[in-house]
Amino acid sequence: MKERVLTGDRVTGKLHLGHYAGSLRNRVILQDQYESFVLLADVQALTTHFDRPELIRRHLREVALDYLAAGIDPEKATIFVQSMIPEIAELTVLFSMFVTVNVLRHNPTIKSESKNSGLDEMYYGFLGYPVSQAADIAFCKATIVPVGDDQLPHLELTRKIVRRFNELYKPVLVEPKPLVGEMPRLVGTDGNAKMSKSMGNSIPLDSSAEELVTLIKRAVTDPSRIHKNDPGHPDICPIYAYHRAFRPEGIPEIREGCEKGTMGCAACKGQLASALEQLLAPMRERRAFYEARPGSVDEILMSGTRRAREIARQTMQEVREAMSLDYFK
Amino acid sequence: MKERVLTGDRVTGKLHLGHYAGSLRNRVILQDQYESFVLLADVQALTTHFDRPELIRRHLREVALDYLAAGIDPEKATIFVQSMIPEIAELTVLFSMFVTVNVLRHNPTIKSESKNSGLDEMYYGFLGYPVSQAADIAFCKATIVPVGDDQLPHLELTRKIVRRFNELYKPVLVEPKPLVGEMPRLVGTDGNAKMSKSMGNSIPLDSSAEELVTLIKRAVTDPSRIHKNDPGHPDICPIYAYHRAFRPEGIPEIREGCEKGTMGCAACKGQLASALEQLLAPMRERRAFYEARPGSVDEILMSGTRRAREIARQTMQEVREAMSLDYFK
Ligand code: SF4
Ligand code: SF4
Repeated sequence: MKERVLTGDRVTGKLHLGHYAGSLRNRVILQDQYESFVLLADVQALTTHFDRPELIRRHLREVALDYLAAGIDPEKATIFVQSMIPEIAELTVLFSMFVTVNVLRHNPTIKSESKNSGLDEMYYGFLGYPVSQAADIAFCKATIVPVGDDQLPHLELTRKIVRRFNELYKPVLVEPKPLVGEMPRLVGTDGNAKMSKSMGNSIPLDSSAEELVTLIKRAVTDPSRIHKNDPGHPDICPIYAYHRAFRPEGIPEIREGCEKGTMGCAACKGQLASALEQLLAPMRERRAFYEARPGSVDEILMSGTRRAREIARQTMQEVREAMSLDYFK
Repeated sequence: MKERVLTGDRVTGKLHLGHYAGSLRNRVILQDQYESFVLLADVQALTTHFDRPELIRRHLREVALDYLAAGIDPEKATIFVQSMIPEIAELTVLFSMFVTVNVLRHNPTIKSESKNSGLDEMYYGFLGYPVSQAADIAFCKATIVPVGDDQLPHLELTRKIVRRFNELYKPVLVEPKPLVGEMPRLVGTDGNAKMSKSMGNSIPLDSSAEELVTLIKRAVTDPSRIHKNDPGHPDICPIYAYHRAFRPEGIPEIREGCEKGTMGCAACKGQLASALEQLLAPMRERRAFYEARPGSVDEILMSGTRRAREIARQTMQEVREAMSLDYFK
């Protein structure tokens, strides 16, 4: 049997180069090797955006467009909407019976969050998001989940929950294996460690050619390079980080030119801009293709969700049977 | 529009006289006045019995038989199975986004439970049971919920959650009104404050005539009555509590006879036994009726669940629309 891979995003904002480098690029490769499921995590988005559901609604289609533009192929990958799979909610509720508060609060994300505001002020759903994540993965019996190093503890918790279920009842769920392949987040154009739309330091995947050039021009570089021939420090420069992520073949030349002061920042940025333009241009085309076909994105999401739902129904039947909750069989 | 009343029980054990006096008797009356929904709370039962689902399975039908025997009329009341309404799980997950851990831990039941074992050792699902209770009530838009005094804080939390939902999104959910009519729990035959199957001090609703007599004979009375003519203290005697609950018309006579020492405990128990036999005999008959028709109870539960499910679907549609999660409409 082919391995099944699950990936996804919270639909709280349009995707940018950070998403592409971190995971999206990887997914485009994975869809050729594995049976791929891609989750539009709108329920997960509600954990932080419950008071702005219209934002989630808007971004659902934006993110779907980003997927299609980036090269996720609906013929190969099943793109689906989390809130339209009630079985995920059912599994969340069932899993929540045997996961202690203690286990959840020691999850790294929750831990750092509760340091800020205390466990008491945390929303119940937010505290439980590792449980709902386990449900996302378990319902479709994903065998592999691509993760970055920082995501490993989350997946370990999912594995624990699945193991516990299988021990308590019957081994009908699949323990997912991590595929350590996701990249850490890309640095922002302002030099901040994380590229993020809300911080205004991102390069959106749907940037026009002009926007792309402007965003790169405005990006910070090594501030110690005042004159063109000052030697630079590429390791503290976001532009260098982008070269590394999107144009690795040019890296030795850039490093040498920067450190020796033989390459100016404008030239360095120019090379990056044309590399990125080569990446984004076909995305723009694919986006235009889908935008010109109103309803086509909806159709892709609806049919992906239908497919995911069929699997969810099947899994839920097995879960009910394993728990002896299949009363009328 | 007719008011809609929701009641129900966790299906962790067969029902006994305590359930009858506390709520079941009341429901038999309510079903003539209101549109009645009766919940077999198997998911709620999992919060404490997740490692014994086969016990829940067994008791689901037992409790249903208890309902029918006690006079819940499937023509009047919709009896349904909680785990078969996925919309309850969906609402639980949605509500959990905007309820803080703080609010939950101050719920009286959670508070006393977490005093014993600490919040950390608590299961996540158990901590959240007021959220799932709110979902039970909200999905079917119950307008009234019968409660005892001790249950008022729970219902207040449900009202709060429903209000918050209606404020955040659109007012599509109904704030239920409490109907203070449930009785506090009946004392056990061993004098313990609570009649409970697991404590072995209960009188099951399906007791045979002989069992009934034996259970009453074995029940403790005022221990200070050593000789037949010793004056007794009815207020500390379970038998007196049962007279009060099931034969209130005889109360003045019993009190006088007991306090003056003119009535012996055997005679007092004899009067109770025949009163209870009058109550249980028709239940036994109805139970025999359903037991002789294999499949009929299943049919009742399935059709009740179908009816509840239709309402659930309708509510969930409104909820999705209110939250603007109805993407493809
Ligand atoms: S030359 Fe390139 S890597 Fe060096 S500081 Fe300028 S932009 Fe950054
Ligand atoms: S006479 Fe009745 S009420 Fe009084 S102690 Fe005996 S059993 Fe109890």
